[in-house]
Amino acid sequence: MNLKVKGFRSAALHSGVKKNPLKKDLAVIYSEIPAVSSAVFTKNKVKAAPVLLSMKNSKKGLINAVVVNSGNANACTGKQGMKDALAMAEKTALMTASDKNEVLVCSTGVIGVKMPIEKILDGIETAGYSLREDTLLEAAEAIMTTDTFRKTAFINFKAGGKNCSIFGMTKGSGMIHPDMATMLCFILTDLSVSKKMLDLAFKELNGLTFNSITVDGDTSTNDTAVILANGMAGNKPVISAGKDYKAFYKALNTVMLDLAKKIVKDGEGSTKFIEVRVLNAKTKKEALQCAKAIAGSSLFKTAIYGGDPNWGRILSAVGNSGVNFKEEKTDISFDNMFIAKKGIEIKFNEKKAHQILMKKEILITVNLNYGKESATAYTCDLTEGYIKINAHYRT
Amino acid sequence: MNLKVKGFRSAALHSGVKKNPLKKDLAVIYSEIPAVSSAVFTKNKVKAAPVLLSMKNSKKGLINAVVVNSGNANACTGKQGMKDALAMAEKTALMTASDKNEVLVCSTGVIGVKMPIEKILDGIETAGYSLREDTLLEAAEAIMTTDTFRKTAFINFKAGGKNCSIFGMTKGSGMIHPDMATMLCFILTDLSVSKKMLDLAFKELNGLTFNSITVDGDTSTNDTAVILANGMAGNKPVISAGKDYKAFYKALNTVMLDLAKKIVKDGEGSTKFIEVRVLNAKTKKEALQCAKAIAGSSLFKTAIYGGDPNWGRILSAVGNSGVNFKEEKTDISFDNMFIAKKGIEIKFNEKKAHQILMKKEILITVNLNYGKESATAYTCDLTEGYIKINAHYRT
Repeated sequence: MNLKVKGFRSAALHSGVKKNPLKKDLAVIYSEIPAVSSAVFTKNKVKAAPVLLSMKNSKKGLINAVVVNSGNANACTGKQGMKDALAMAEKTALMTASDKNEVLVCSTGVIGVKMPIEKILDGIETAGYSLREDTLLEAAEAIMTTDTFRKTAFINFKAGGKNCSIFGMTKGSGMIHPDMATMLCFILTDLSVSKKMLDLAFKELNGLTFNSITVDGDTSTNDTAVILANGMAGNKPVISAGKDYKAFYKALNTVMLDLAKKIVKDGEGSTKFIEVRVLNAKTKKEALQCAKAIAGSSLFKTAIYGGDPNWGRILSAVGNSGVNFKEEKTDISFDNMFIAKKGIEIKFNEKKAHQILMKKEILITVNLNYGKESATAYTCDLTEGYIKINAHYRT
Repeated sequence: MNLKVKGFRSAALHSGVKKNPLKKDLAVIYSEIPAVSSAVFTKNKVKAAPVLLSMKNSKKGLINAVVVNSGNANACTGKQGMKDALAMAEKTALMTASDKNEVLVCSTGVIGVKMPIEKILDGIETAGYSLREDTLLEAAEAIMTTDTFRKTAFINFKAGGKNCSIFGMTKGSGMIHPDMATMLCFILTDLSVSKKMLDLAFKELNGLTFNSITVDGDTSTNDTAVILANGMAGNKPVISAGKDYKAFYKALNTVMLDLAKKIVKDGEGSTKFIEVRVLNAKTKKEALQCAKAIAGSSLFKTAIYGGDPNWGRILSAVGNSGVNFKEEKTDISFDNMFIAKKGIEIKFNEKKAHQILMKKEILITVNLNYGKESATAYTCDLTEGYIKINAHYRT
């Protein structure tokens, strides 16, 4: 596996935002030519300064460089925060010979604390001198906060007879919820594709991947997911929904779903990965709404942690989800073992059910038997570990 | 303090639903004459059999007896569940010479498990022979599940020159959330009051008390809060919003707020009581919505547990709440100490802030400086204890 994407360079280092000098906290990613881009941002009304700046800069749809720091979110930092974000964009533009309006700035970490901006600007300068093609994994490391492992995905595919690649990196292990959360995601591809088709694929897949996961129901101030496509694979530009678009869509789905699942697997304090599949809902939207409601229930997540086949909590979550269903039509199974049919418990082997729930990966299926649409949400269990990580995050 | 309310009798005992023979699990409450009643029920679409039955029986607004068991919720139990709930109503009616359509049935405990109905019916018979005036505290004990203490409130007030009383009991320590949750609440008063005025007071106060608390964001299948007014104080019936109504409203508010706070204080695994006050929102509704959003944030609740003055999480929760506000106008304080003004951190004594957050009761004030309406929500911190209690509830 060759972890390079044609025309993309990066650099990552420790600039001093994080206390531990062994931890990288700054990355610059650069495309040799301005890349077509598509981006989604947090829906929280409290948006960090870099998010506001990046929203503005991403409107045109061309991005030349991305600068990202971890350790400080530059959120709730007022006017000074915006000055600092602008300074990061300007310095990055200078070091990469980019237009400062074609730079994305991302920050993640503690909220409400002024940025150590001098250290960051020095770091950007150093990074600017060290941009290389084979350092994407190091960049992925530099964006981590409470993550316990680096999250990347890579795939090759063919478009118009040309070899193309997609590399994705993401961070996020808490506050992960439908509609995005403290998550940064950077996807790089050398495909040549129109802004319109890139938006179509990225926004649709975002709904099926990052917006279908939940860790704790909170939505952060800093979320940004962006894809850059620099066209250096040399394929005939993808401008409509033909064969090449399908190949790209499939490859991008693989990368984004892989990254989304890795975020859930790294859910703060989590010990289990849970896939919640809702079958035969009235509409696609209700299927996803229902799956997310189950995946988001603290009681459900805690029961799974304990290996407790408390299926009533699942049905109760369905009842709270607001979707159309009939209790007396609903079937529930753990992996391939039915626990409840037509809304009531059936005789099941309690020991075996417990064994299923003690596995590392669990599939919960809720068949509403009401319509014909299905959807899947992903979550993790809720454990003492989550509390420990988040009780003292700032101090 | 005389814990009797004229004309009300009760009995409580261990019927065998709970395993531990020292724990009461059944109570019958009876009014010598049918009482005017007002009730609110869970909004979860999955409603337990006793809830469905009680909703039907409470429509007329006259209730003569209440039977309640703990240990089994009789939820997700299909047709058999409804038969069992009906059998409980019939047996209670028989033992108290009530109309079976004037009996409320309430159950709380594990979901999805068939009721040990024979034991319960035997228990109701025994209770029926032991109804007394001075056993209200025992009834309050019999409705507990994971509660660590019995929750009651009592007050005397005057209406039309007559001495009147209100006694309230409640249970609930997890799954407590706006719009009610696994909560049972029975309030008894000897006031003479019309159904219309009783509804007015009870439903309004329900919004300001039980619907303003949150423990974990889940809403249960069994919630029921009911007030019975049997008129035996002999006052001139309260039929409009005059002086007597005001005295009653004030007394009822005291009882219900006290009970609501006790539920929060007993939040599963909680170590701290948190009052979240939102000032100067655009509308009353938005003030409460904002207060509840903060009170419901897992990250906020976990930070308070750790004594971490992570005020950014509060502002972030405001941003997620959907209310109108401006980040740059928002002030945040812990007790009487400002942490942030105009959306950014001010210099504060970190040690003192930590000390405030390590107290047992904490007031968080968020001044939106946007409108003129205010509201308060109540919650507790989120701790490892919550996980321990809920991971093995059923097994």
